[in-house]
Amino acid sequence: MPDYKVYYFNVKALGEPLRFLLSYGNLPFDDVRITREEWPALKPTMPMGQMPVLEVDGKKVHQSVAMSRYLAKQVGLAGADDWENLMIDTVVDTVNDFRLKIAVVSYEPDDDIKEKKLVTLNNEVIPFYLEKLDDIARENGGYLANSKLSWADVYFAAILDYLNYMTKTDLVANHPNLAKVVDNVTSIESIRNWIDKRPKTEI
Amino acid sequence: MPDYKVYYFNVKALGEPLRFLLSYGNLPFDDVRITREEWPALKPTMPMGQMPVLEVDGKKVHQSVAMSRYLAKQVGLAGADDWENLMIDTVVDTVNDFRLKIAVVSYEPDDDIKEKKLVTLNNEVIPFYLEKLDDIARENGGYLANSKLSWADVYFAAILDYLNYMTKTDLVANHPNLAKVVDNVTSIESIRNWIDKRPKTEI
Repeated sequence: MPDYKVYYFNVKALGEPLRFLLSYGNLPFDDVRITREEWPALKPTMPMGQMPVLEVDGKKVHQSVAMSRYLAKQVGLAGADDWENLMIDTVVDTVNDFRLKIAVVSYEPDDDIKEKKLVTLNNEVIPFYLEKLDDIARENGGYLANSKLSWADVYFAAILDYLNYMTKTDLVANHPNLAKVVDNVTSIESIRNWIDKRPKTEI
Repeated sequence: MPDYKVYYFNVKALGEPLRFLLSYGNLPFDDVRITREEWPALKPTMPMGQMPVLEVDGKKVHQSVAMSRYLAKQVGLAGADDWENLMIDTVVDTVNDFRLKIAVVSYEPDDDIKEKKLVTLNNEVIPFYLEKLDDIARENGGYLANSKLSWADVYFAAILDYLNYMTKTDLVANHPNLAKVVDNVTSIESIRNWIDKRPKTEI
């Protein structure tokens, strides 16, 4: 079995899909949490100077979605054929577009600009994405692709806390099909165990 | 052979990787170019109301990177194993991050904000990404992953015109290894033929 390490800050956010997927497959991993003080010295050792980073037998890689797709293949959560993988990739990229649209407002440093952008985000962007994603989840019986569990569901359930943190809301509260996706993931015993034992963090 | 259609505006931009990949594999496709006048009526028929959209035997899908990965598998430009695919996915997502960082400045509507953001983009972001990507291309002998041709190279070569258009520059002019990636793609006969026959557009 390969030696896995996840390098990230002491937050869930973009690192949590990796931790969920490794936990799902019962693959032991070193959950390395870097402090803000340690980061400047470590930054040059990371590809593109960013985290999360996954290390597989000493080889460091980056890009959270690409790493999640790789781990999904190792733990049996990829699609059964090219078309199923396309359905998974499409919805994961849509979830990621949604995340970026939220993040660009959440991290806006200028208060006046942020205020303006929040109106569009809350009145248009968030309802649009939630409705589309909830439709997909309904059509797929509580999953995001191919009417069965895949890494798309795990990815969504794992970053939802981060999306909720940025939007200061419970995004799936009024979207029962998306809530079912989350429930389908978090009720899996190996993931439940990870959630119980992981460090408690706000983000 | 499936019936392929590419729906997009009369531009290269995010549709061009799909057209390059289909051309590479000599897969006939219907290159549907929607005018700005036609778009409002068509928008509701597209997944997420966006283009480019790929139609495969009547089924419409979206998300340009996901569609490119799918087509790459059909034309033999995916990796040979999970690790090779991870290397491809990582660099494609990095190219796409680069594109998004350029786009967010290029499409900034406020002139004062744009002016400020352009300084960081031109002095920091662009040199950083070009240096990293050129290093990767050098390490891989003129390719972006696994020291051989893959859809990562095709994706980069196909969207480069769009990146150059947004930055009003020739991004690979001083990056010989990235220039070699482009040359390795555009010197392939099937892609050369597509470039010669495609509609001439600025973007």
